[in-house]
Amino acid sequence: MIEFEIVHRSARSHARVGRLHTPHGVIETPVFMPVGTQASVKTLSQDELEQLGFRIILGNTYHLYLRPGDERIARLGGLHRFMSWSGAILTDSGGYQVFSLAALRQIDDDGVTFRSHIDGSEHRFTPERSIQIQQNLGSDIIMAFDECPPYPASYDEVARATERTHQWALRSKQAWLAREVGALFGIIQGGVYEDLRLMSLEQISALDLPGYAIGGVSVGEPIEAMRHIVEFIAPRMPADKPRYLMGVGTPDDILHAVQQGVDMFDCVLPTRLARHGAVFTTRGRLNLRNAQYQERCEPIDPECDCWVCQRYSLAYIHHLFRAGELLGLRLATYHNLAYYARRMAQIRKAIHAGDL
Amino acid sequence: MIEFEIVHRSARSHARVGRLHTPHGVIETPVFMPVGTQASVKTLSQDELEQLGFRIILGNTYHLYLRPGDERIARLGGLHRFMSWSGAILTDSGGYQVFSLAALRQIDDDGVTFRSHIDGSEHRFTPERSIQIQQNLGSDIIMAFDECPPYPASYDEVARATERTHQWALRSKQAWLAREVGALFGIIQGGVYEDLRLMSLEQISALDLPGYAIGGVSVGEPIEAMRHIVEFIAPRMPADKPRYLMGVGTPDDILHAVQQGVDMFDCVLPTRLARHGAVFTTRGRLNLRNAQYQERCEPIDPECDCWVCQRYSLAYIHHLFRAGELLGLRLATYHNLAYYARRMAQIRKAIHAGDL
Repeated sequence: MIEFEIVHRSARSHARVGRLHTPHGVIETPVFMPVGTQASVKTLSQDELEQLGFRIILGNTYHLYLRPGDERIARLGGLHRFMSWSGAILTDSGGYQVFSLAALRQIDDDGVTFRSHIDGSEHRFTPERSIQIQQNLGSDIIMAFDECPPYPASYDEVARATERTHQWALRSKQAWLAREVGALFGIIQGGVYEDLRLMSLEQISALDLPGYAIGGVSVGEPIEAMRHIVEFIAPRMPADKPRYLMGVGTPDDILHAVQQGVDMFDCVLPTRLARHGAVFTTRGRLNLRNAQYQERCEPIDPECDCWVCQRYSLAYIHHLFRAGELLGLRLATYHNLAYYARRMAQIRKAIHAGDL
Repeated sequence: MIEFEIVHRSARSHARVGRLHTPHGVIETPVFMPVGTQASVKTLSQDELEQLGFRIILGNTYHLYLRPGDERIARLGGLHRFMSWSGAILTDSGGYQVFSLAALRQIDDDGVTFRSHIDGSEHRFTPERSIQIQQNLGSDIIMAFDECPPYPASYDEVARATERTHQWALRSKQAWLAREVGALFGIIQGGVYEDLRLMSLEQISALDLPGYAIGGVSVGEPIEAMRHIVEFIAPRMPADKPRYLMGVGTPDDILHAVQQGVDMFDCVLPTRLARHGAVFTTRGRLNLRNAQYQERCEPIDPECDCWVCQRYSLAYIHHLFRAGELLGLRLATYHNLAYYARRMAQIRKAIHAGDL
């Protein structure tokens, strides 16, 4: 299904460079995966994602299950074919969105009942159902169904969610093995509590899965708490398996986590910020809506080689945002993903060169 | 400024194939000009317009004057540079939008006072001001400021507007000659009244301008009335000058007008319809939101060679529209403009071949 090969280990940190072999291509790690929630990385075409060098994207199980439906996608040949994406796809378990987006959810030891945020219809996810949906989608990497407690949450609440995550991981594994489509990654929970994280790490690692993720971070906790958890857990995760930090983050968060030995990242930050006019540059973050850019002829970032920076001025993109033109959202999104792609390439190079 | 060369005249109709030489390239006519209202053909990048083979687009003076402002664009090097468009640009006079979009307009023989649809601020357009704005934008083709009466309008109302259009055309020409930036086209008004159209044709032609347009069509009149006016006026327009039918139209309307000797067209139809999910195909018009497409694996049009039809299925684009994904708007817009570009190329070929 997948194979993970570590090409180089840093002598100065836990950082490593690897190759993740999937049925849909080889992915150089550390890697950032753009988020294609509803089978589209918002505003971009699949050609543009390829141009940017991305070979793996993320899809959201909750959204795709509700619309257009996993069974429909299966009938249409799976998610890759449906969206015409020849690279790899990782899907989340749907749990996080059920807890953050859906209404009237009721959670019990068996699963979660919730109402669709689209039409209010009632649905139920269990570990078995989540895996079945992800296998219907035909994902290359599927995630175990977990309970992600909110932040802040008491020790007892997090302990219960962590234990449930363990039970659900066992059931996710059974469901996965029944059909063996995709490579199952387990998710380590435990909130900001070290002993719960350690317990979760042991429980989930014991399942001997193709990869492991740190979940339950980037849910509202202070950045120091997140970084502390990453420092505490990442280096202890199985060394020969890919390590995925879910929902993180800023370029600095990613750099920090790479140094703790994390290999994979996803985050809506670069694409969502872009749609609000915020762009990353080598000189820091800019907001394109700011009046100071209205007569600036230079590109978003003179040091950026993306086609947006090669062709368009700050003044023009500022105008597009002020005028509500959709092209503005596209240009900012493309640029931010180009920035992330370049940062990840620099990180891989720095590890190779012994600079990280 | 511009030169118009007729390459071939049909023996079977008034149709002709020509080349319009502009400071920003040579344009094969008959030509369709996509509408880039606010310095953007909605959802598309300038690279995509080039890929599609477009060498001239239209900008709206009313919109660009209000935002970002013609003086700002002038300081930034003109509209071509501002939007990074190396092809030609035609701007309308602003009159049509003042009459259709702006609030609280007061028209007198000197000009029009109106309030911005954006912030309610008060502004005034006169023939001199309209030409000045278009020259500030640096357009290759600028349009005389005209009064476009609504439909229906009484004979007397249209007669008054036609006479005013004449007076304003004289003033537009004087203003244009004072700076001689761009090539001024005169606009023939007269509504659905043959004698007023003929009078306007004579008045405007007498100005000996680089080109002429039929205005005041596609303003709500029945299709037969529009076609009758085109049949009546187009063949009588100066034969050696480009003839532009403003705001028209469907592929069939364009084909009809080409046979009456029209060379240039603009219309929001293909781009606006696309954003509503309506696409043109060789089998007719489809609405992508229709449930019948939800599991259709074929492209929008199997006979279309655009990249959208090469890569994406009806089922996927249907999903993008249903899910509110901006990529859907892009794909439909690109496809519709590819359809229009191909239709115009076919028309030029058919005239050459003697089939039109």
